[in-house]
Amino acid sequence: MATTTPPVAIIMGSRSDWPTMKHAADMLDRLGVAWDARVVSAHRTPQRLVEFSTGAKEAGFKVIIAGAGGAAHLPGMAASMTSLPVLGVPVQSKALKGLDSLLSIVQMPGGVPVATLAIGEAGAKNAGILAGQILALNDIPLAGRLDAFREEQTASVLETVED
Amino acid sequence: MATTTPPVAIIMGSRSDWPTMKHAADMLDRLGVAWDARVVSAHRTPQRLVEFSTGAKEAGFKVIIAGAGGAAHLPGMAASMTSLPVLGVPVQSKALKGLDSLLSIVQMPGGVPVATLAIGEAGAKNAGILAGQILALNDIPLAGRLDAFREEQTASVLETVED
Amino acid sequence: MATTTPPVAIIMGSRSDWPTMKHAADMLDRLGVAWDARVVSAHRTPQRLVEFSTGAKEAGFKVIIAGAGGAAHLPGMAASMTSLPVLGVPVQSKALKGLDSLLSIVQMPGGVPVATLAIGEAGAKNAGILAGQILALNDIPLAGRLDAFREEQTASVLETVED
Amino acid sequence: MATTTPPVAIIMGSRSDWPTMKHAADMLDRLGVAWDARVVSAHRTPQRLVEFSTGAKEAGFKVIIAGAGGAAHLPGMAASMTSLPVLGVPVQSKALKGLDSLLSIVQMPGGVPVATLAIGEAGAKNAGILAGQILALNDIPLAGRLDAFREEQTASVLETVED
Amino acid sequence: MATTTPPVAIIMGSRSDWPTMKHAADMLDRLGVAWDARVVSAHRTPQRLVEFSTGAKEAGFKVIIAGAGGAAHLPGMAASMTSLPVLGVPVQSKALKGLDSLLSIVQMPGGVPVATLAIGEAGAKNAGILAGQILALNDIPLAGRLDAFREEQTASVLETVED
Amino acid sequence: MATTTPPVAIIMGSRSDWPTMKHAADMLDRLGVAWDARVVSAHRTPQRLVEFSTGAKEAGFKVIIAGAGGAAHLPGMAASMTSLPVLGVPVQSKALKGLDSLLSIVQMPGGVPVATLAIGEAGAKNAGILAGQILALNDIPLAGRLDAFREEQTASVLETVED
Amino acid sequence: MATTTPPVAIIMGSRSDWPTMKHAADMLDRLGVAWDARVVSAHRTPQRLVEFSTGAKEAGFKVIIAGAGGAAHLPGMAASMTSLPVLGVPVQSKALKGLDSLLSIVQMPGGVPVATLAIGEAGAKNAGILAGQILALNDIPLAGRLDAFREEQTASVLETVED
Amino acid sequence: MATTTPPVAIIMGSRSDWPTMKHAADMLDRLGVAWDARVVSAHRTPQRLVEFSTGAKEAGFKVIIAGAGGAAHLPGMAASMTSLPVLGVPVQSKALKGLDSLLSIVQMPGGVPVATLAIGEAGAKNAGILAGQILALNDIPLAGRLDAFREEQTASVLETVED
Repeated sequence: MATTTPPVAIIMGSRSDWPTMKHAADMLDRLGVAWDARVVSAHRTPQRLVEFSTGAKEAGFKVIIAGAGGAAHLPGMAASMTSLPVLGVPVQSKALKGLDSLLSIVQMPGGVPVATLAIGEAGAKNAGILAGQILALNDIPLAGRLDAFREEQTASVLETVED
Repeated sequence: MATTTPPVAIIMGSRSDWPTMKHAADMLDRLGVAWDARVVSAHRTPQRLVEFSTGAKEAGFKVIIAGAGGAAHLPGMAASMTSLPVLGVPVQSKALKGLDSLLSIVQMPGGVPVATLAIGEAGAKNAGILAGQILALNDIPLAGRLDAFREEQTASVLETVED
Repeated sequence: MATTTPPVAIIMGSRSDWPTMKHAADMLDRLGVAWDARVVSAHRTPQRLVEFSTGAKEAGFKVIIAGAGGAAHLPGMAASMTSLPVLGVPVQSKALKGLDSLLSIVQMPGGVPVATLAIGEAGAKNAGILAGQILALNDIPLAGRLDAFREEQTASVLETVED
Repeated sequence: MATTTPPVAIIMGSRSDWPTMKHAADMLDRLGVAWDARVVSAHRTPQRLVEFSTGAKEAGFKVIIAGAGGAAHLPGMAASMTSLPVLGVPVQSKALKGLDSLLSIVQMPGGVPVATLAIGEAGAKNAGILAGQILALNDIPLAGRLDAFREEQTASVLETVED
Repeated sequence: MATTTPPVAIIMGSRSDWPTMKHAADMLDRLGVAWDARVVSAHRTPQRLVEFSTGAKEAGFKVIIAGAGGAAHLPGMAASMTSLPVLGVPVQSKALKGLDSLLSIVQMPGGVPVATLAIGEAGAKNAGILAGQILALNDIPLAGRLDAFREEQTASVLETVED
Repeated sequence: MATTTPPVAIIMGSRSDWPTMKHAADMLDRLGVAWDARVVSAHRTPQRLVEFSTGAKEAGFKVIIAGAGGAAHLPGMAASMTSLPVLGVPVQSKALKGLDSLLSIVQMPGGVPVATLAIGEAGAKNAGILAGQILALNDIPLAGRLDAFREEQTASVLETVED
Repeated sequence: MATTTPPVAIIMGSRSDWPTMKHAADMLDRLGVAWDARVVSAHRTPQRLVEFSTGAKEAGFKVIIAGAGGAAHLPGMAASMTSLPVLGVPVQSKALKGLDSLLSIVQMPGGVPVATLAIGEAGAKNAGILAGQILALNDIPLAGRLDAFREEQTASVLETVED
Repeated sequence: MATTTPPVAIIMGSRSDWPTMKHAADMLDRLGVAWDARVVSAHRTPQRLVEFSTGAKEAGFKVIIAGAGGAAHLPGMAASMTSLPVLGVPVQSKALKGLDSLLSIVQMPGGVPVATLAIGEAGAKNAGILAGQILALNDIPLAGRLDAFREEQTASVLETVED
């Protein structure tokens, strides 16, 4: 039933993207935000993409995190079929090191935005945080956990360069 | 008083960014979302940046749209001082055509996300839509207006290539 | 009825792509190959994209030429929903001059090819020729017209650098 | 005799390209399409290139797959001497990671197309599929095998991110 | 007390930058210039950045060396809050190899300069030398040590290519 | 005589660089710092380069600002022949828009630093400011004028986006 | 007869390259070196390319200057069919500003060199000078004219930045 | 005495360039052309550069091969001080993989050419061949050895892709 749908869906173009995208899931865990992760390939399972994207809002999701590499069409295509915010993570590609992934995700035409994060693990982690920030706008306890995370993060930055 | 603070703050590094960033404002107008726009230069008015960013949440803002070009530090620095979602718009620069702006905004380290949009006007317009999508998660009438916009947009795409 | 479907479909993400894509149509005209051109936006009309792509083969098309710019998802998404050959034309974008369009189209993952041509008008013209070459494999008169075109092209290259 | 010529010729600039180009051959094997592979260096064996290219059609080939790296002239030069469709695979180069290979292959002038695929193994695999798609336009059993491959590919994309 | 403040402050965005930035410290050691190194993250400890930067001159520093990678905002933000010369070192990033770091540091708008050095260790070493050159304008013994370093460096370049 | 040598030398590879480099001179004028500007082409007048660089310190210069475009060797070669700080300004080139100028100037090997500024006019202006910052370390009135400039600059950033 | 063959052949891929390549011819005129210019398109007139390249040495040419843009195969293919030195000029292309031309020409595999010059007019002019330098190794009067040109060039670099 | 000066000088910016530049020497050995190799750093030994370059012709050299990486000024500066042909080899750099080396060498302004080869070992080998081609214009036995090398090279390209 819809009430058990987690607020964040993490989708990715291939199982090989999971080591990157797992950082989004880990971050959400840390913020106490439930998530669902699945492989949805824009190119190899377009039907699954259509079904997921057009049904995501009704299913109860609030935010979609989509990761893909190379000619990375998944985030933009998901965004074209839902009014939920879509956060795009460019997965580092082999030859061009993620520059292709980045440009394929961020350079969306006017009318259909994808909130793009950095290439690779940092981007995936930040997608988790950004999802938290969006959800926290209407979730005071989550806002508190986010603030606590930020404070811990600040505190963890030791000033000394060596032990 | 805080109740009159519009939900979206649009900040930009220079007045010369306004012709680009105005597209965000226009989109928000179309979606019926109030906004406030001001120039906050990360480099020339860092104090103003600190004051704005650290106080933005308490002031009542929900989402910050930040545009800048070249070594574009405004979006990331704002994001470092607020837990509100920050949407970054890379303004097209003269020599490198916005590639410097894009990389300076999107390649944030793990811990501090900036939701980056496309270079230039399309990105600014999309920042307006994305802000609307985020706010619509808890604003049913806005969600309706967003859906209407998307439908109009779809309907406006004529299939014929010429009149 | 299917017998009147032209062999080549030219699709593009926006009417603004037509001045580029028209060069494909002109080339097909010159080769005596019928075509149909329409706007199908991957992002603004995803439903139209699904319908067109999944039905293209049954409708009687043989080759699809798809042009798009920026985060250019149209050729790859069409290719994901048809087994017809899809030829992709990167339309020159404003900020990044088509480098984003090119990478978004050509860097497809293994399993779903897009036959990518050069950025801009030369690429569109060449998509027309390539479509002709593909169809000519089973159309001897067309093969003859192609050879004639090539010969005329060769003959038209004057050796002198000035009149 | 010509009747035994396989429909697809795979040519490459160096033996060192074979580990990449083998993915095209493997894909063709899977689709039940016969192929012939040989080394034809545009730069070191230009005579062999001329002989192969000008004679390829008469020899009975239908599609040429050409892979090369760096200043990759083989696909374009082959295309200039045959009216058969030429599919170009940019082999990943050492210093510039295939960006030079890609631009050298894809940026052909108007008049002589090369159907360019992705850099590296994915591109080689896709060249095999694209050759199959082209041949399938007039080979119903092959079209069936292609559809089966695509269906298997779709089915093989597990939705779960981990076992 | 201020009299014991070393003339050069080395700041960096993360402890992981120290293996790079240590080359600046080593160079300063060689030139007999005292330094202080600390981690100041523009994004994770913005308050520390403000305090350090606004107080650096009064604290007695003469030159600031700032290293950061990716969306590298530390050098430019420090420069926006002090009138001391700021030397920026782009630390090599994982995906884009420091091109993002370089553009984020060097492309500062008119009004707030960052003296940018090369990507990575060479840049860090050179930041140490440049700091020495700046301080040597009013420190004759240091000028002598710098000249000696340069002479030794010249002498150490053996003309033979092999032993 | 040396006492009348201005503290800053502005050198450039070609007269055509003056419209860019003039922004450095204008900034120095505003800060009340005297300068001398001359054309010294690394490639066309190497002898002049050697004479200028090896004699610059003895002539009484304190800081050298060097601007050049394309394969921009002037700043680095000047730096190799003087122990004065050399500030490099990448002049925007025609084809590659200054990316070649930037990389040719900033990527100096360990041992010989060039303090590199942004491409084009902003970089030239900032070279003037940076020269002022370096000289102000031992010139209290100049430090005062620099602070005044910075304050005026900050004050001139109007917060409103339109009049 | 061979005795009347000028020592330098200038070939180019298209008549539209002449405004660029004319700078090579002008330079050769200034050095008193005879030249022959003709359009030889690698892609549209491959037969002409083969004939020219394989016969260039016997025809009496000493140096070949070849200019082309985009996927610029002319210089490399000429070099593959002659043992004469081939000087390559990357003509500035529309979308990618000659970066594609440059990489297509310079990144030749080991075994077949192309002496590559700068993108555009400067490169064409320098191809003329380089041809002169090569020929001057065995032509003392030409060596004298080259030295005179260099001296005039040096003398023409006025030191003042303005009249 | 000058009669024993080998015709080719190989210079490089650092001993660390020798593993690359050795490929030029090996090629010259194969062609029976004598060479001299030495380290001449444009930045660390500018005086040695001036002495070598201005004296190279008188010393009896005919062709200079210069290799350097990063902000690679050696080839262009050598070219500015001699009328001998200078062949430039961009050595692969760590961060930017030789793109900086390439642009620093090839983008010379009109008036001072550097004949630029490919990045890395292939470029060094080709510099050796090109030097041979230049010298062979007036050395018939060398021309014969060059032709033999080219023929062997052609013959060594086996047509089969596997043993």
